[in-house]
Amino acid sequence: MSIQVPAGNLLKTINYPSDLKQLKIEELEQVCQELRQYIIDEVSVNGGHFAASLGVVELTVALQYVLNTPYDQLVWDVGHQAYGHKILTGRRDIFHTNRIYKGLSGFPKRSESEYDTFGVGHSSTSISAALGMAVASQYKGETDRQHVAVIGDGAMTAGMAFEALNHAGIENSNLLVILNDNNMSIDPNVGALKEYLTDITTSKPYNRFRDDIASVLAKISSIGPDAFKIAQKLEKSIKGTLLKKSNFFEALKFRYFGPIDGHDVEHLVKVLRDLRDIPGPKLLHCITVKGKGYALAEKDQTKWHAPGLFDKITGEIKKTKSEKPQPPKYQDVFGHTIIELAEANPKIMGITPAMPSGCSLNLMMKAMPNRAFDVGIAEQHAVTFSAGLATQGLIPFCNIYSSFMQRAYDQVIHDVAIQNLNVVFCLDRAGIAGADGPTHHGAYDLAFMRCIPNMTVSAPMNEEELRNLMFTAQQDDMGPFVIRYPRGSGVMVDWQRPLKAIKVGKGRMVCDGDDIAILSIGHIGNEVVKAMANLNNEGFFPAHYDLRFVKPLDEALLHDVFKKFGKIITVEDGCLEGGMGSAVLEFMADNNYSAQVVRLGIPDQVIEHGEQPELWADCGYDANGIAAKVKLIGIPKNKHIIAS
Amino acid sequence: MSIQVPAGNLLKTINYPSDLKQLKIEELEQVCQELRQYIIDEVSVNGGHFAASLGVVELTVALQYVLNTPYDQLVWDVGHQAYGHKILTGRRDIFHTNRIYKGLSGFPKRSESEYDTFGVGHSSTSISAALGMAVASQYKGETDRQHVAVIGDGAMTAGMAFEALNHAGIENSNLLVILNDNNMSIDPNVGALKEYLTDITTSKPYNRFRDDIASVLAKISSIGPDAFKIAQKLEKSIKGTLLKKSNFFEALKFRYFGPIDGHDVEHLVKVLRDLRDIPGPKLLHCITVKGKGYALAEKDQTKWHAPGLFDKITGEIKKTKSEKPQPPKYQDVFGHTIIELAEANPKIMGITPAMPSGCSLNLMMKAMPNRAFDVGIAEQHAVTFSAGLATQGLIPFCNIYSSFMQRAYDQVIHDVAIQNLNVVFCLDRAGIAGADGPTHHGAYDLAFMRCIPNMTVSAPMNEEELRNLMFTAQQDDMGPFVIRYPRGSGVMVDWQRPLKAIKVGKGRMVCDGDDIAILSIGHIGNEVVKAMANLNNEGFFPAHYDLRFVKPLDEALLHDVFKKFGKIITVEDGCLEGGMGSAVLEFMADNNYSAQVVRLGIPDQVIEHGEQPELWADCGYDANGIAAKVKLIGIPKNKHIIAS
Repeated sequence: MSIQVPAGNLLKTINYPSDLKQLKIEELEQVCQELRQYIIDEVSVNGGHFAASLGVVELTVALQYVLNTPYDQLVWDVGHQAYGHKILTGRRDIFHTNRIYKGLSGFPKRSESEYDTFGVGHSSTSISAALGMAVASQYKGETDRQHVAVIGDGAMTAGMAFEALNHAGIENSNLLVILNDNNMSIDPNVGALKEYLTDITTSKPYNRFRDDIASVLAKISSIGPDAFKIAQKLEKSIKGTLLKKSNFFEALKFRYFGPIDGHDVEHLVKVLRDLRDIPGPKLLHCITVKGKGYALAEKDQTKWHAPGLFDKITGEIKKTKSEKPQPPKYQDVFGHTIIELAEANPKIMGITPAMPSGCSLNLMMKAMPNRAFDVGIAEQHAVTFSAGLATQGLIPFCNIYSSFMQRAYDQVIHDVAIQNLNVVFCLDRAGIAGADGPTHHGAYDLAFMRCIPNMTVSAPMNEEELRNLMFTAQQDDMGPFVIRYPRGSGVMVDWQRPLKAIKVGKGRMVCDGDDIAILSIGHIGNEVVKAMANLNNEGFFPAHYDLRFVKPLDEALLHDVFKKFGKIITVEDGCLEGGMGSAVLEFMADNNYSAQVVRLGIPDQVIEHGEQPELWADCGYDANGIAAKVKLIGIPKNKHIIAS
Repeated sequence: MSIQVPAGNLLKTINYPSDLKQLKIEELEQVCQELRQYIIDEVSVNGGHFAASLGVVELTVALQYVLNTPYDQLVWDVGHQAYGHKILTGRRDIFHTNRIYKGLSGFPKRSESEYDTFGVGHSSTSISAALGMAVASQYKGETDRQHVAVIGDGAMTAGMAFEALNHAGIENSNLLVILNDNNMSIDPNVGALKEYLTDITTSKPYNRFRDDIASVLAKISSIGPDAFKIAQKLEKSIKGTLLKKSNFFEALKFRYFGPIDGHDVEHLVKVLRDLRDIPGPKLLHCITVKGKGYALAEKDQTKWHAPGLFDKITGEIKKTKSEKPQPPKYQDVFGHTIIELAEANPKIMGITPAMPSGCSLNLMMKAMPNRAFDVGIAEQHAVTFSAGLATQGLIPFCNIYSSFMQRAYDQVIHDVAIQNLNVVFCLDRAGIAGADGPTHHGAYDLAFMRCIPNMTVSAPMNEEELRNLMFTAQQDDMGPFVIRYPRGSGVMVDWQRPLKAIKVGKGRMVCDGDDIAILSIGHIGNEVVKAMANLNNEGFFPAHYDLRFVKPLDEALLHDVFKKFGKIITVEDGCLEGGMGSAVLEFMADNNYSAQVVRLGIPDQVIEHGEQPELWADCGYDANGIAAKVKLIGIPKNKHIIAS
């Protein structure tokens, strides 16, 4: 299944772009073949993002060959595609640590390399960042310095990319935007711009058309003096009026070049050299194939975006084998449950900004295409579009990853909460997100959502609770309703239980106990459950409550807790500043209780990448960390008895 | 100065659009004249936004004449321009209460009228919202229902407008976007799109050009059979390739109409009637003049955006007269101080998303045009552009209103904080914003900023502190640094004192005392000072501390406070959930202190519009509210003596 290349010799000699520059242009194609094979070899055994980096192998090699990095500044948008970049810039021999705890980041990262000019992870930031660099160079008089943003056609659908183009078009700084057009986000790209790009790519290319016009006009002119005059008039008219605004990017005052084949490395080198000498904002439209060179990936690009480990020869994706049935992912529970709910409730609609396969809304998009929408990488629009639907009595479920929801914070406040509209926000990837690292951890949502009026903020401890919270949220007049849940698997094999409503703001006792009360929110409550056996063995019998709602708080439950317990531990997979523990402290203060409250959660620092359990342990709120804290502040039963 | 019109007779007869529809089309121009005069009469004596509504008088009348509102749905973007809309939809006789405490909202508001389909205030939401409505209608089979978004060319520069166009272009729903092109935001509109719009407006109009092409081709064809063939080929080529993408909006799959004169009401009616019958997404480009019909406003549109009270005849703007010198606005202090700092520190740059006159960065833009940037209504880009500048060792001051910063929350986290870049965020209009109401109150910033790692979050109590915090923030290696300050005037006449650095995280004692400690953050500390005289008179002598920083907290100060005081009152002009008071509770819990902590701040509800002091009083944290709370929990000196 993998591509056939001669044993690599060139790639080994390249530690830095300076080594690449020693090669002849004719040798670059072999470098590309070796680099592609290296990525296949590494990702198949170590995992990571796959198809995006294969698609930009030639672009990566050509850019490093032509540019004088790191003096020239190259910004990769999102960064899924930057594996080749990392391998060519000093990180080939440690690339096997990619996305592993304490290893290389899966994204460009400033602290990792001077070649990584800007940390990325979320999409569509590259043009703004590169423009900032370009304007800084201009201000400093570094007129020879190049600034390049490489951005996909998917990322180009996000508003901030447009904002950046709109500004860049009037700055006369040295900025090249390379549009890496592969028709894909993680899922197929959607929207009018995508259709437009396909249109100018598949129809007669723009530049060739310009030549054609010239040749036709020449022919007309040759007919005679009258025709010549007409031709002149027509030419002037076309050039003056129509061509100036004949292209989306030229309308935004960019000089547009392309489309060109993004897999012809020698041609890319020539074009990039030419562009280096053209001042001002310019855009090069490159057509690439996501997954290029690995047939299966070219064929199913969504599946091969980040396939996990696989056999590079057969293409078989390795699965953890298990005899026993496994609990489903929360994502699957969401995907199946929204269909189940929508079948019964015609008001329900589904919205995702470009994450249909990631959040499993693709199931509803297939089953109910007129009720489920992928709106592109457009979180802001996704939320306000949902608000618009809600004004008409519909109940949209707007599914956005917790960290991406930061993109639509104003829309949540301004368009949904202030108007108290019935929009259900399903925040996927809440809490520690794992290998994607700091940009993707959904650390702040409890804090930034619970301060908004009219908002209900909930988190399920397991699959059944997720289903029941979804069922609860789709009832009439619930107002804005957040349900946040983590990436990955839940804990219940038998999860598809009958739906029932939960009283809003109602928590539950998981187990009774004494001395200490543990209050948890969401899935991390299962770590409390895990800690319990060990604790009970050692004579500690804390009570455990699952709050389920951070807003409104279960005041009756909290009154009971504060009356009964003098020691309270709060546990959340979210930031400590302003989170659930903080809400509990507010309740305590407002009600004049006094207790020792110890808060466990994400500390006030940037949390790097790693597996979720590794990072929970680091943050001190996995089962061991919770048990340790109980033992630190608690009094074990036997000692208790002795003492009294 | 005001326009001369015959005494109004028609406007009085119009209470609702149904009354307007009874008139003949020839009578509409008089309605427009009367409506324009009514707005001038009202705003000159009651204040409010002015020039925007004058610019859309004809559009407002034409839309209400043609559409079947409220069944047909009309969404006004931002809403500054919706005064005419309010006057024609049942609110003429209460329009004098506009923007007044408990009066009409200055923006469309769903709870105020069924004609207000969507609450607005922040820009660029209208296309998303109207698309949501249109898709809902499509889903419900209401195929006759019209959905119209009216959006300015300024608002069109924001990313979310583009996201909405990109989605709307592929939905075949019944959506008309009216581009109200007046070349203005509050300040002159900027960016490439604005230049493009000017270009297609001032050059030969697009539609006429299409006719020209046809006529030229006909002429060529008449020359002879060879020419005919060439003409045919050319025509096919132009139609097939070039015209399809010859317009920015057509590239996004909208049918584009215009540009037309937005002040010709009869023509507008005809065009709107025609458009009603064309299905799918369409855009009507209307050219209007902001301030139309009031000569002074046409001439200085920024000044007359919201001029305050004025003499409608002379155009003289009324000022509060005062013998004594008055304290400056915080905005002026910012504007003058950034120049002072930038003159000494070449690293400083200034950035505003379309608020140069509002935040006073216009002073720096004038003084140092290569170091100060208005990037358009583009908060997301403003932040990441600043991050790009910061990677190059520059120190950008990115000035964004607190509530608008909600638009760039992800960029603050993802592009600035995670990378620990030196960007100074000046959050103007923090806390209760006044007459602009719920959409504009900067209520949440302390909560949503303090949960972000690497962030410093500060608020000055007066002008001198603002200057010193700005001076502090522009030092090297400070990382991301928030300075939040309110709308309006400070408290110091003698504010231009020598700059000095404040130690990060260092608060100060304003006055010593006993029994109770009051901890305040920012300008609201002045209400504590005001409360003091009254309190001291009645035997209460609380201590008062100005924390200055919510992050990092002044731990030494707080240790002192918690050791000395058993009763603490926190005061902030910000939300109670997760705000400064909550941070103090976290400190208390983390350090095992126990005290009675009463938190004053914005309660968990949508705060309507009104003057700042009115709303502070409502929320219980003006001087009276603070004093009342002290008296409630405190023991006066004489009683204290009696008791002991």
